[in-house]
Amino acid sequence: MNYGIIGYILGRVISIVAAAMLLPWVVGLIYNEKTSVIFLVCALFFGAISAIFFRKKPKNTSFYAREGFVVVALSWIVMSVIGAIPFIASGAIPNVVDALFEIVSGFTTTGSSILRDVESLPHCILFWRSFSHWIGGMGILVFILAILPMAGGQNIYLMRAESTGPSVGKLVPKIQNTAILLYAIYTALTLTHLVLLLIGRVPVFDAVCLSFGTAGTGGFGVLNDSFASYSAFAQIVTAIFMLLFGVNFNFYFYLISRKFKNAFAMDDVRCYFMIYIIASAIITLNLILNGSFGGLREVLFQTSSIMTSTGFASADFNLWPRLSRALMIMLMFTGACAGSTGGGMKVSRFIIYFKTVAKEARQLAHPRSVKVLKMDGKPIEHDVVRVVNVYLCSFIMVFAASFIIVLLDNFDLTTSFTAVAATLNNIGPGLNMVGPTGNFADFSVLSKLVFIFDMLAGRLEIFPMLLLLAPNTWKKHG
Amino acid sequence: MNYGIIGYILGRVISIVAAAMLLPWVVGLIYNEKTSVIFLVCALFFGAISAIFFRKKPKNTSFYAREGFVVVALSWIVMSVIGAIPFIASGAIPNVVDALFEIVSGFTTTGSSILRDVESLPHCILFWRSFSHWIGGMGILVFILAILPMAGGQNIYLMRAESTGPSVGKLVPKIQNTAILLYAIYTALTLTHLVLLLIGRVPVFDAVCLSFGTAGTGGFGVLNDSFASYSAFAQIVTAIFMLLFGVNFNFYFYLISRKFKNAFAMDDVRCYFMIYIIASAIITLNLILNGSFGGLREVLFQTSSIMTSTGFASADFNLWPRLSRALMIMLMFTGACAGSTGGGMKVSRFIIYFKTVAKEARQLAHPRSVKVLKMDGKPIEHDVVRVVNVYLCSFIMVFAASFIIVLLDNFDLTTSFTAVAATLNNIGPGLNMVGPTGNFADFSVLSKLVFIFDMLAGRLEIFPMLLLLAPNTWKKHG
Repeated sequence: MNYGIIGYILGRVISIVAAAMLLPWVVGLIYNEKTSVIFLVCALFFGAISAIFFRKKPKNTSFYAREGFVVVALSWIVMSVIGAIPFIASGAIPNVVDALFEIVSGFTTTGSSILRDVESLPHCILFWRSFSHWIGGMGILVFILAILPMAGGQNIYLMRAESTGPSVGKLVPKIQNTAILLYAIYTALTLTHLVLLLIGRVPVFDAVCLSFGTAGTGGFGVLNDSFASYSAFAQIVTAIFMLLFGVNFNFYFYLISRKFKNAFAMDDVRCYFMIYIIASAIITLNLILNGSFGGLREVLFQTSSIMTSTGFASADFNLWPRLSRALMIMLMFTGACAGSTGGGMKVSRFIIYFKTVAKEARQLAHPRSVKVLKMDGKPIEHDVVRVVNVYLCSFIMVFAASFIIVLLDNFDLTTSFTAVAATLNNIGPGLNMVGPTGNFADFSVLSKLVFIFDMLAGRLEIFPMLLLLAPNTWKKHG
Repeated sequence: MNYGIIGYILGRVISIVAAAMLLPWVVGLIYNEKTSVIFLVCALFFGAISAIFFRKKPKNTSFYAREGFVVVALSWIVMSVIGAIPFIASGAIPNVVDALFEIVSGFTTTGSSILRDVESLPHCILFWRSFSHWIGGMGILVFILAILPMAGGQNIYLMRAESTGPSVGKLVPKIQNTAILLYAIYTALTLTHLVLLLIGRVPVFDAVCLSFGTAGTGGFGVLNDSFASYSAFAQIVTAIFMLLFGVNFNFYFYLISRKFKNAFAMDDVRCYFMIYIIASAIITLNLILNGSFGGLREVLFQTSSIMTSTGFASADFNLWPRLSRALMIMLMFTGACAGSTGGGMKVSRFIIYFKTVAKEARQLAHPRSVKVLKMDGKPIEHDVVRVVNVYLCSFIMVFAASFIIVLLDNFDLTTSFTAVAATLNNIGPGLNMVGPTGNFADFSVLSKLVFIFDMLAGRLEIFPMLLLLAPNTWKKHG
């Protein structure tokens, strides 16, 4: 393990979190909030720490998958610990575990909250919550890759460990340019959404926070009823933008580079929209037959919100009939596209699962036929199939273990199951006690620690967190 | 596809089911039940059909995996259709779908029932229900392999398609001898259990039926309260025998051939007992802390019953606290050992899942280390790992699709979820409405058809049923 390079990258992460904290400080100044000075103090302190202790670039820059996973896991833990300090110091969330839960929920773009009343919080704190979604959405290490020329071509390992989906490719030959491009698309989409919200007369502060929460597919709001009291226009616009942020960013890259054929040949994007349309149609039908249909807008918003793992609520889907609720749970697992800011297990993984089963059936029926698994018209590498399968196994294991521990709190099965589903898939709300009108406050400390682990494991797609726990990782030889 | 050999084997299956029906006829004679003549009529009719139409052995005996899967799936459907006739004709279960549900539940050793009151049924019908467990437990095609010398060494495909678990090997070089050996062990264990029940003064008829239900890990009983009113001795003996029938039969073969080292080196058997002990311990603790502990016997019986997929109930575990109920649901999925009569996904598959994840983590941590996956000290073939992964994917797909369809009946989420879990894993009872004191009577016809499919898919481990549905299977070329 190259500890030098790990330390160096951690130092950069600390400095960027410190710099990011200057923004909520400015917001606090605008609203004349004294507590916002905490952000300045934190920014200066951690800026200094990073400058003093982590300045030197190591001579040995060798960097492999192992270092990539470990540094990503450590980075997310370190930034969460730093990010929680303003919550604690301001008294907004005095409990350490709660504060950690809230900021991890922010960075991982989960959007689950332990707060019962967000409207009472100062603007700078609300801003920091929402801004953490935006930072975590595209990823802090991708940001570092964008602004810092790192040595060697091995940075792909860093990018892979933080990006979502089974196979991360470079858009352009140079990693740094890929990272810049991703952040450019991300920023442009965020700004467009913000402008549309402002045109729709959403108050400036709300619009900024909501556009952060949408871009990262996070889900923290600034009102206690989440999204219900915003205008129909704001809801429709946000439903569309949640969907857009759940799209594989390669799609936008193809659009920009006028490779329309490539763009519309992307299996996961097509499947993603198909699932969205079918699920919305079934839910609409189910609500109409059940006599609880509240309009198409509600369905389209809620389906988009859950499938993209954002978690905004314009209606209490906990009151929907069973079939619709079950579909919502399933959409939590399906998730959004790979290479998007969305969570869940990702549509492209399910495509691979489906194709492997179909291939097996075909091969059993016609043993001599040799067909290759294809995605977007290109063959899927055997390694990708293997890792996707291992992912499924580890996902189930983490899920089962978390479920058992959380059940010790003795809340009902649906609450416990969907609480794990909502955190491990980075959704936000679940059903029953953790439904759109509920929160995670009443869980025990142990359960909250499990949720914190699950949110990180979900965002980083499990392996980095597993690797951090495996004793093998820290052994010298090999 | 070699249709000749498929027809020939189907003919043998029909003749064996016909012969099996003579037993309930004899039982009916003993108890002076007129309805039992139905069994004689069926036996003669189908015996004649098999003799007239399916007599000729085909010249082309080529037989591959495809033929194996198709013939197994068709055999199980054919024997279910024939087996349901006495239920309908006797008026015990006049509804066709219900009768089919009941006999499929019998043959697949599920033990789920649509009957509200079994005590009112004639003995011959009760016997047929329980006997179907015994036939289905080890498998009808394995029986045919045991009594009929089939051509060629390709019968391994037939055995593989009907046996449980990811990798079926021959115990001895000749398939026929392997099949004979399996049935010998099966019969010896069944008789031992029967004798012990008789020593425990269980009425003869009950003892016979219960020993069939235990051997096949089926779960049909002859009393409305399942196993609750039998003596403590009968319960303890049956708890032990359920566990024994959940053990990989290779274990017994090793014991008989005095290869004790091999026997005790079997990973899945060791893991199986470990899971049983740990789960029982947690449930006991949970019940004690919750103040609802009804004695160790209850826990050991119930855990054994669910984990082996038998489904007898000595207590209503639907009233247990949440953690215990959730553990029971998980045990439904874990299931018993491969190569046993038990259902579920099988312990050995979970071992492989766990080992692939551990291997991946190790390889990420130490890229140069090349370690081979091992089970029972021998390397696991790559093909086995692949098929085990495909199994997981298809299991999840079948589960999700079934869950959605069953939810249309609008029963609560736990009922719907555990009803699918109980049928697809061949357990029997689930929770809430389908709990130990409930039944499957109130589901719609559509849901019952889904359950019938799931029970067959669960018993045959999905691929045969999928292959039957795949249009590709019936195409000529390839």
